[in-house]
Amino acid sequence: MTMASDFDSLEILALCKRRGFIWPSFELYGGVAGMFDYGPLGLSMRNNIVDVWRDIYKGGEGFVEIDSETVNPREVFKASGHVDEFADLVSYCAGCGSAFRADHLVKDHYENADVLSPRELDAAFAEHGIKCPDCGGDLGPVEEFNLMFKTSIGPGSSRVGYLRPETAQGIFVNFPNLYRHNRDKLPLGVIQTGRGYRNEIAPRQGMIRMREFNMMEVELFVDPDDKGWSRFHEVEGETIRLIPNTGGGEVTMTVGEAVEKGVIANRVLAYFVHATQRLLVRVGVDPARLRFRQHLRDEMAHYAMDCWDAEVLLSFGWVEVTGIADRGCWDLSRHAEFSGTPLTHFRMFNEPREMEVERVRAKHRALGPRFKGQAKALGELIEAAQPSDVKDGRLALALDGEDVVLDGEFFEVVRTREKVSGERVVPHVIEPSHGLDRIFYSVLEHSYAHDEAEGYTVLRLAPEVAPVKVGVFPLMERDGLDALAAEIYADVHSPRMEALYDGSGTIGRRYARMDEIGTPWCITVDYESLDGPDKGTVTIRERDTTAQKRIPVASVKGVLASLLSGMPFGDL
Amino acid sequence: MTMASDFDSLEILALCKRRGFIWPSFELYGGVAGMFDYGPLGLSMRNNIVDVWRDIYKGGEGFVEIDSETVNPREVFKASGHVDEFADLVSYCAGCGSAFRADHLVKDHYENADVLSPRELDAAFAEHGIKCPDCGGDLGPVEEFNLMFKTSIGPGSSRVGYLRPETAQGIFVNFPNLYRHNRDKLPLGVIQTGRGYRNEIAPRQGMIRMREFNMMEVELFVDPDDKGWSRFHEVEGETIRLIPNTGGGEVTMTVGEAVEKGVIANRVLAYFVHATQRLLVRVGVDPARLRFRQHLRDEMAHYAMDCWDAEVLLSFGWVEVTGIADRGCWDLSRHAEFSGTPLTHFRMFNEPREMEVERVRAKHRALGPRFKGQAKALGELIEAAQPSDVKDGRLALALDGEDVVLDGEFFEVVRTREKVSGERVVPHVIEPSHGLDRIFYSVLEHSYAHDEAEGYTVLRLAPEVAPVKVGVFPLMERDGLDALAAEIYADVHSPRMEALYDGSGTIGRRYARMDEIGTPWCITVDYESLDGPDKGTVTIRERDTTAQKRIPVASVKGVLASLLSGMPFGDL
Repeated sequence: MTMASDFDSLEILALCKRRGFIWPSFELYGGVAGMFDYGPLGLSMRNNIVDVWRDIYKGGEGFVEIDSETVNPREVFKASGHVDEFADLVSYCAGCGSAFRADHLVKDHYENADVLSPRELDAAFAEHGIKCPDCGGDLGPVEEFNLMFKTSIGPGSSRVGYLRPETAQGIFVNFPNLYRHNRDKLPLGVIQTGRGYRNEIAPRQGMIRMREFNMMEVELFVDPDDKGWSRFHEVEGETIRLIPNTGGGEVTMTVGEAVEKGVIANRVLAYFVHATQRLLVRVGVDPARLRFRQHLRDEMAHYAMDCWDAEVLLSFGWVEVTGIADRGCWDLSRHAEFSGTPLTHFRMFNEPREMEVERVRAKHRALGPRFKGQAKALGELIEAAQPSDVKDGRLALALDGEDVVLDGEFFEVVRTREKVSGERVVPHVIEPSHGLDRIFYSVLEHSYAHDEAEGYTVLRLAPEVAPVKVGVFPLMERDGLDALAAEIYADVHSPRMEALYDGSGTIGRRYARMDEIGTPWCITVDYESLDGPDKGTVTIRERDTTAQKRIPVASVKGVLASLLSGMPFGDL
Repeated sequence: MTMASDFDSLEILALCKRRGFIWPSFELYGGVAGMFDYGPLGLSMRNNIVDVWRDIYKGGEGFVEIDSETVNPREVFKASGHVDEFADLVSYCAGCGSAFRADHLVKDHYENADVLSPRELDAAFAEHGIKCPDCGGDLGPVEEFNLMFKTSIGPGSSRVGYLRPETAQGIFVNFPNLYRHNRDKLPLGVIQTGRGYRNEIAPRQGMIRMREFNMMEVELFVDPDDKGWSRFHEVEGETIRLIPNTGGGEVTMTVGEAVEKGVIANRVLAYFVHATQRLLVRVGVDPARLRFRQHLRDEMAHYAMDCWDAEVLLSFGWVEVTGIADRGCWDLSRHAEFSGTPLTHFRMFNEPREMEVERVRAKHRALGPRFKGQAKALGELIEAAQPSDVKDGRLALALDGEDVVLDGEFFEVVRTREKVSGERVVPHVIEPSHGLDRIFYSVLEHSYAHDEAEGYTVLRLAPEVAPVKVGVFPLMERDGLDALAAEIYADVHSPRMEALYDGSGTIGRRYARMDEIGTPWCITVDYESLDGPDKGTVTIRERDTTAQKRIPVASVKGVLASLLSGMPFGDL
């Protein structure tokens, strides 16, 4: 048997299409590049991967999950930087009008074509005589193309909206709600799965570059002075395969060493690099084809404190499937700046501290003569104000529903030493962001084994990820074998234990059909099930060993549940 | 205690917001009307409703589930009719520019304002002196506003795309894939859950009218000559509450009667009207506040063979939450017409029938002299062609890679009697289409009970729908009570058995907090758990009866699993 990476990914996409994992979208209307629909088997498998992620983060870590809108008003992405920065460079052919990613056209001539400016690319086209690959026509000037899908919210003088390029912003803009929900405590872990959109100029590479894709994102808000993690000790002895950005290539070390040696910036980030490895391997990525590559200095976002990509070796080469970043205070600071609402955590000191603080003090001697009976109430309002409320030396207050603007005659800002119980800080964000479709596809490639001579294919999917858990067959569709098989199917089949009844073709052919979609077990009802010493039993077969055993009909459901929760087939 | 419908829905939305069920979207940026985010509790509850739906359709009926794209090219919605028909009428104020739904502005003057044309509405504004409700300015001419969010796919000479107004079209355009997946058989049941979009002119009524909403749709393809259903007998004796469009008001009858008397068009439609009732009641809609209303003749889509709305009584009045329609052959016929690809089922006859059919016959006497050695192969190609392949009296064939166009000299179309094994028909579609957010909100209203005097609220959610299944409390956060409670929490908590640890405030206060979010059970660790005759036991409390029992710590997980799968608390 040979491994998938020897094959063109087209072979896997052909299997996906034939068996109902993935279908190119809108084929009836000629298709749209970079768009795929999940068929019955693909969606079940994708949902199973989401369930593993949820089990790790919502179950194991106790994080909360939310679901925010996919259409967002422009303000959100102005603050996040996507309106200004989320772009690729495009050139249109003057002849046929086709659009091309400008950097892709000169990638044979430059090592890092993606860092060239529009003018440098224009010059590169001229120097190397680059023409339209479709028609040979002249290429127009290189320009920026924003990759967000744009739309309008409401009619008329409507608001500009965009389809979100990531689910993360929906978590950041809900920080006040989430922080309150967590009773004003850190750490605060929030997860979201759903659609992201990227209006690619010319998508290629199948499921690797999709215009509409699925993400699983985790945003963990932590105290900027506490980058530890309570469960760090559980993983510090585990090994991970790293490519640091300091050169020197790949190293394998323990999570603990990586932090001690300063390879990974801090413990909480290292913990979630390892959590990503745990997730990917559990759903079926081959550990031998998984590594973590640190972003190069010029590749890292300017605000990122550290950033690692989980890369998986596919038939296309190494492909990023997850990014794990310490984003510092960037996200919350930007939304605070653009919205005018502070997004902070009140960090309690262990015990109150004496600190120098600014306070607004009333000048009671001036207030009395001027405001008479209202002077006392006004004095209290003044002293409740914050120094930041003073604008241009004036303080605006509302007294009994009336606006009062005071100048420096009536108040002063003083520095004083006080006991304070805590201080406000902007939380930092640790973000493991998973490309769900890429993980899905990686699992298919790494599970795929094909025997050319026998024309036989097996997907060695982990049982919890396999879309169909059990095939149920009558040896023949007659003599009551079919009725008993149908009964077993009806008893077993549920959304968490998908079963498939198959009565057509030879048993060998049916096993092969199940192996091809990664079904871990098959149950066969034969004549012995109905009569003789084995009456009341059926055969159960394991995919990877093809081992078979007889078990009582009455225990089929329980046996499958045990196998699914990890019991070895040999223990039956 | 009083019921929710006595209250303003704002009270429920306030609870939703405070406890993390639902948050208005983008509040940091002033909010966007008709958009809501699901917080941690809301999303868990919504996912639980989806799981019930999946259990009924994917588990019980064996339907398959797919996930298709939310951005679709224009062709899809041209065929579906949405480009031309999916619109509301809008009028803009000439003064302030605000946009209004024109029919809403005159609804006090007309019984069915929504059937008025743009010109009739212009006249109505003049007649009744309707001005801008915001500024009193003059209203501009009424015009159509298409309710799909519009965007562009790709750069430059890009394709127009729309955000889907329903998930259904993603199923219809995948019919060839789905039919093949089902091995060319009918019935073929397909379900999809996901986002739908409707760019409302001026959304109101909280979660009832959302610009971005969640759907659960079912498309069942059936043979047009077979509108029965194999499991109909299981439900024919069950009663349903109907408002037929023949007048005469509400009637309660059995499913069987409804079909016999011709109230519901056919058995398969009636079965899924009842399936909808089963779903809604199971997730928590009060049966006394649920009815099925048949569309009026002028309300029904022209192609619909029959259509019923599941309506739920809310504080807003009766609100449609689900539509169950027999859509006939409309959807597949339209996509076949617009794509040029036949979308049909090959219906096998019980035994071959002798029928008159058209066939293409070769004129061998003419072929021989003209085509010599190729004549035989060409003759075979001609006889394999379909009469529909003949265009303008000519037949285009490919012979050994070369195009050959033949005229009537070499072939003829003849009518002949033959034994044929079956015929092609366009499947009909039965569609139960659920508004998930409306169902979610209905369940909250129908579960909501509030005691004004005590200031106490309880959500009587079904356990399988409740977001949190169990609260885990230490009586005091000390003396090891907290450690044992934390251990129980860690043991129990998982995505399918969400637990919440709470150690703050009095036990009464903690019970009240759990009741308010509908948590069915609470576990309390007290001093008896640590020492004395009850050592090793904890208290379990049931929400609705407030009954309490002691159970061993070791059995907590098992007891909760049993209660969740339906065991009465009294059986403990």
